[in-house]
Amino acid sequence: MPKNALYAQSGGVTAVINATACGVIQAAAQHPADIGQVFAARDGIVGALTEDLIDLAQESAETIAALRHTPGGAFGSCRFDLGDIESHRHQYERLIEVFAAHDIGYFFYNGGGGSMLTAYKVSQIGDELGYPLTTVGIPKTIDNDLAGTDCSPGFGSAAKWVATSVREAALDVASMAATSTKVFILEVMGRHGGWLAAAGGLAGEGPDEPPHIILFAERPFRQADFLKRVRETIERVGYCVIVAAEGVKDEDGEFLSIMHDSDVYAWIQLGGAAPNLAELIKRELGVKVHWAVGDYLQRSARHIASRTDVEQAYAVGRAAVEAAIGEHHAVMPVIRRLSDTPYRWDIDLVQLAEVADIEHFVPAAYITEDGYGITPAARRYLQPLIEGEDYPPYRNGLPDYVRLRDVRVSRQLPPFDIEA
Amino acid sequence: MPKNALYAQSGGVTAVINATACGVIQAAAQHPADIGQVFAARDGIVGALTEDLIDLAQESAETIAALRHTPGGAFGSCRFDLGDIESHRHQYERLIEVFAAHDIGYFFYNGGGGSMLTAYKVSQIGDELGYPLTTVGIPKTIDNDLAGTDCSPGFGSAAKWVATSVREAALDVASMAATSTKVFILEVMGRHGGWLAAAGGLAGEGPDEPPHIILFAERPFRQADFLKRVRETIERVGYCVIVAAEGVKDEDGEFLSIMHDSDVYAWIQLGGAAPNLAELIKRELGVKVHWAVGDYLQRSARHIASRTDVEQAYAVGRAAVEAAIGEHHAVMPVIRRLSDTPYRWDIDLVQLAEVADIEHFVPAAYITEDGYGITPAARRYLQPLIEGEDYPPYRNGLPDYVRLRDVRVSRQLPPFDIEA
Repeated sequence: MPKNALYAQSGGVTAVINATACGVIQAAAQHPADIGQVFAARDGIVGALTEDLIDLAQESAETIAALRHTPGGAFGSCRFDLGDIESHRHQYERLIEVFAAHDIGYFFYNGGGGSMLTAYKVSQIGDELGYPLTTVGIPKTIDNDLAGTDCSPGFGSAAKWVATSVREAALDVASMAATSTKVFILEVMGRHGGWLAAAGGLAGEGPDEPPHIILFAERPFRQADFLKRVRETIERVGYCVIVAAEGVKDEDGEFLSIMHDSDVYAWIQLGGAAPNLAELIKRELGVKVHWAVGDYLQRSARHIASRTDVEQAYAVGRAAVEAAIGEHHAVMPVIRRLSDTPYRWDIDLVQLAEVADIEHFVPAAYITEDGYGITPAARRYLQPLIEGEDYPPYRNGLPDYVRLRDVRVSRQLPPFDIEA
Repeated sequence: MPKNALYAQSGGVTAVINATACGVIQAAAQHPADIGQVFAARDGIVGALTEDLIDLAQESAETIAALRHTPGGAFGSCRFDLGDIESHRHQYERLIEVFAAHDIGYFFYNGGGGSMLTAYKVSQIGDELGYPLTTVGIPKTIDNDLAGTDCSPGFGSAAKWVATSVREAALDVASMAATSTKVFILEVMGRHGGWLAAAGGLAGEGPDEPPHIILFAERPFRQADFLKRVRETIERVGYCVIVAAEGVKDEDGEFLSIMHDSDVYAWIQLGGAAPNLAELIKRELGVKVHWAVGDYLQRSARHIASRTDVEQAYAVGRAAVEAAIGEHHAVMPVIRRLSDTPYRWDIDLVQLAEVADIEHFVPAAYITEDGYGITPAARRYLQPLIEGEDYPPYRNGLPDYVRLRDVRVSRQLPPFDIEA
């Protein structure tokens, strides 16, 4: 008898996480002997706990296909971690109750490193409680910090947005520099890792092409050296373009985004390395500065998704289903790079236990010795990930993204307090 | 005998100002009996004063054609205004000297309202000094605040970026709202006018579709009312998406971007209505807030330019040349709207004297009574301006923008101090 499947999205969403959902749902439909219905949990593991399930049989094939070009998390995502199995055993028991009530035999959890830990815990408790459950994690994060995979689906599209935005804004500041703005700063996501900042480096190809300075989360911010470099760049090039990871810290390990060591800044936790850097440059160098903060724009910019990324996001979704049917348990499909030029890749499987909750930072070999640029090795790694365009359809001048009918499955169980 | 032509870009650049340059240069080439060489002033009027001229004959036809898809100001722009004719007559005399030295009979000045005043002054002094010069202004501004034209080339593309970004980021926050971020704020350009903020309204089509709140520069920010609306929106919809014009001011006429009326804010002139609003909402409503600041990204985003905008930008460039050859002087080609649905437009000519230095704000009829949304009339106006895509070519995963050879014309005159 086929078992039903449950798919859920977790953590910060991406421009292509729904492409993964599309891959899961379309692949599952091709295996009716193994997989019956496919449900999606509303808001990730929260929906699984509260029995808030979306009936995907109520969505048309066109809607499911359109998930491939729709950003955000179509089923809702969450920032919610299960507790320890020892102290929060009731959460795991509840999950198994929900799975049993809906005859769920497959659990697909689509998230980052922390979510893979959740998936791993769920896979263990199924075994422990004797409930037959096949759990497969599916990678996703714009931070590109997942272990066990060459890259993380979601990163390539965010990287393409960042590199494109840097190239475009740099042309703007270059135009204005003679009489006006001399410095432009783009702050990109990356609390712990500088992968997206590194991607900004792809915008320039030759010497002195912008960006001129990349601030990695992996390198301490040295104020005097930084200001010297900004000044020298303005003198030599006429202007200076900076890409800053939001997680850049000073030499004391303090985030620049909450820099408050001067009487100019009395503000804390507003976020924003860029406005702080702008104020610093303005004050110390006396030049006009513009800054932008990408925030959610960079991780939802499906309009400029990388075709490579879309294909990989879809592929890991399909591969997760194939793995589950192939009786692989507690695994995660990953991207394996076969060659840089031409870029070739395939899908491999790794054990969740080996990748859960591990962060993968920009390696030293990818950062130039001065700490402000990317090396040729970084370019070889990053370049293929932003390759290719995959435009969404447009209607009335805007991307035509799909919305679910969002029909819920009837509840079989009493309510559950997720905070308990 | 044909006379040479000088083209210059002025003020903040746009994603399509080079499409206008392309129109000027390509049209001029079709009139060899009237127009000899075409030069571009480096950095706008500054290059005209300092005799810093780019020889466009040194650029290939392919390069000129590629200007159509290249953002920023390819020749450099400027924030520099000529002084009054009375007090700064030497500036105007110098211009005429430069024009005479290079046999320039046509001057095309591509800018916003302030630049049209410059163009108008130049047109007058040519007459006054008896130098035969045909001056034509060409409209450009992402602010859409130029008088005499239905819309300003450059606005439609920025508007498309804003509306697309709002739609995409809204899908992101909708995904996260159950357990994390409940409010997202995008700050867009518009120091005096809320046209780009209004364009953000196109992202939503039905009731309660994001954006839920638009803050116009044309409406005073009423804190208590605003917070009430944010809270109610979160209660009703689950999350709240806000688009804020950078120029939004409180009831005392003070910019929110330099809000410092509380002990939380000791900072001034950092810019950033968005971080201030985020801090306010976080403090008063206790919810998680994300914010983004578009800055130069929105006005250089050629990758998502409006096809309508590109066509209009190119058309006003061509029309400027046709007007000059047709012996129109001190005029500006403008976009005339013939119908909304289907959208039809043509090019008209207005007198520079009638449009110079006039700002055109979002009319009351375009803002809903509560002050937080756009009316159906606004949609009818805005919708056609973002219609159509016009993708640039890509190379190595990024838009392939063109760079000029940038060969300078030999100087004939002594140096000139623009600050004098």
